[in-house]
Amino acid sequence: MSNPLHPGATIGILGGGQLGRMLLVAAARLGFKTHIYDPSPNPPAGHVAARVFTAPYDDLNAIRAFAESVEIVTFEFENIPADALNAIEEICPVLPGGTALVVSQDRVLEKDFIKGLGLKTAPYAQVDDLESLQRGLDQVGTPAILKTRRFGYDGKGQARIDDPSQAAKALDAIDRRPALLEGFVEFEREISVIGARSIDGTVICYDPGENVHETGILRTTTVPATITNAQATDAVILTGQILNALNYVGVMGVELFVTRQGLLVNEIAPRVHNSGHWTQNGCVIDQFEQHIRAIAGWPLGDGQRHSNVVMTNLLGDEASCPQMLARDATAALHLYGKTESRPGRKMGHINRITGPAGG
Amino acid sequence: MSNPLHPGATIGILGGGQLGRMLLVAAARLGFKTHIYDPSPNPPAGHVAARVFTAPYDDLNAIRAFAESVEIVTFEFENIPADALNAIEEICPVLPGGTALVVSQDRVLEKDFIKGLGLKTAPYAQVDDLESLQRGLDQVGTPAILKTRRFGYDGKGQARIDDPSQAAKALDAIDRRPALLEGFVEFEREISVIGARSIDGTVICYDPGENVHETGILRTTTVPATITNAQATDAVILTGQILNALNYVGVMGVELFVTRQGLLVNEIAPRVHNSGHWTQNGCVIDQFEQHIRAIAGWPLGDGQRHSNVVMTNLLGDEASCPQMLARDATAALHLYGKTESRPGRKMGHINRITGPAGG
Repeated sequence: MSNPLHPGATIGILGGGQLGRMLLVAAARLGFKTHIYDPSPNPPAGHVAARVFTAPYDDLNAIRAFAESVEIVTFEFENIPADALNAIEEICPVLPGGTALVVSQDRVLEKDFIKGLGLKTAPYAQVDDLESLQRGLDQVGTPAILKTRRFGYDGKGQARIDDPSQAAKALDAIDRRPALLEGFVEFEREISVIGARSIDGTVICYDPGENVHETGILRTTTVPATITNAQATDAVILTGQILNALNYVGVMGVELFVTRQGLLVNEIAPRVHNSGHWTQNGCVIDQFEQHIRAIAGWPLGDGQRHSNVVMTNLLGDEASCPQMLARDATAALHLYGKTESRPGRKMGHINRITGPAGG
Repeated sequence: MSNPLHPGATIGILGGGQLGRMLLVAAARLGFKTHIYDPSPNPPAGHVAARVFTAPYDDLNAIRAFAESVEIVTFEFENIPADALNAIEEICPVLPGGTALVVSQDRVLEKDFIKGLGLKTAPYAQVDDLESLQRGLDQVGTPAILKTRRFGYDGKGQARIDDPSQAAKALDAIDRRPALLEGFVEFEREISVIGARSIDGTVICYDPGENVHETGILRTTTVPATITNAQATDAVILTGQILNALNYVGVMGVELFVTRQGLLVNEIAPRVHNSGHWTQNGCVIDQFEQHIRAIAGWPLGDGQRHSNVVMTNLLGDEASCPQMLARDATAALHLYGKTESRPGRKMGHINRITGPAGG
């Protein structure tokens, strides 16, 4: 892609969940049209899309028709099957491109990549079978978490091992799939950086947010994080290092542990990220618009924060009476238009402004 | 309407221009779906609408089908034909409702209404023919502006009269339609207040913005306006008075002249208003979401401003290279997705943050 995308152009998004929906709204703000591809009927982003393609990701004819209908494709989730990706790339560019997806689709590759950059991770071992799991436990220690290498999210495809004797049971729990064994890290807090890189290599990061998870699901992100200036700088620098190493174009979420030994990289997500939702009400240009600007070949916003924000996810039936939530007149409510609420399902979020930007 | 609208409900918007588009995006943020009704094909709001009805406003069958498909109807422009309005109201509520539309559709009724509230306006006279125009000129003086009572906007349907001898020519210029003759006002500045009123009667106003027009078209709105606290308070109080007198539900734009004799009401618009676009980047809850909250029966945001903003309209080909405009990394760009640019046509706007909120 040499020329910037002109307003009026159509952007394709794989995945029509809330991230796709919010990407679409940001694209609309810049004058773009958006087509959504999603296997499930009535996806949240479909309500605001110029066109919706409803077909499985392995229906390559549908995938190709989708690619033909747009000028560029991006995605809201990293687990896109390689065949679909290849089929699209024969027709139009996919951004962020190849390496980032390959690396982030596989927990072992991801850890190897991070380590290869000289950055710290939790202790880990590759697990292919019971024998390598047992070797891994020797090396990593217990307690540890066994995670499938691919297609895991929000705590799914994981098993905790408190004692080496539980190895076989844990492997069964994840259907004996290729896995990553990860040691526990004693951390003071979890933070994340939302970074963006443009086609010309400019890198811009938002201020780190502090994350609180509950049962594996993000509950709140608070900005600013209670970290030192030096830690914030470190976090931003290492995010830039990751973005540059991947020759990345778009927005990425980098999850970090703050420990006594410094910052550990927990996970990278090659897409807009739940922990970046605060930017919608804390910044002039939010992570969604930043991503669209990056893939469209436009200049990035500077990521400046005008307000301190606490973002709270609304899970399950917590969003069932939004009129009540709207009573907090200084809180920005974001609902995803999902019709069915299930326990733990992300239905929306609230950005509460806690004051003008400042530590 | 007794019960608040539940997310997932569908809102109908008459008019699919940029105001409809931005209303739609705000509605999506709260989980609502939106249907658009517009006579012209490919309206800007159509790209993000769940459904688009393309038919003239006097096609009452289409109007009825539109009304049947939604739970409530609102609009982006005040010149809705009465027949269409009546047809919708037989099927579902229209908000803001009747009186506000009747008053704002007719410049003479509007002035009479304002005057009836004890508020000041420019000197004016009702014009039905040459004789009443000449009488009006005696009373109002010259220079004066002759404006058609109905269906005028952005300087259209107007004729300037510098000398009483030009009366007949001016009347011809507006096709001898029923008109309002308005005297010139010596004003220090033009300001506007964006006010909102909820179904339960709560009134909330944004800080007044200072407007600069060029050839009858809004060019910039600057917040805060360079007015005294007393003037800002006056402006907000009289806006509340207007909203309450109309038993209004929704967002209204009130244009005011700041003069040595105090504030004069220039015009009221029973809808979101171009001079309120700054709220998108200056407030947690912008005028579009405020309007949707009001008509949905939800609590209003408090209208608090976190940043000072200068909003600049992008007219004609000024938006033809948005990638250049995007280089100002602290400016939020809003483009309307219009394919055809014409001189003076509103193609988008820029909100430049000039600092944290403060005088």
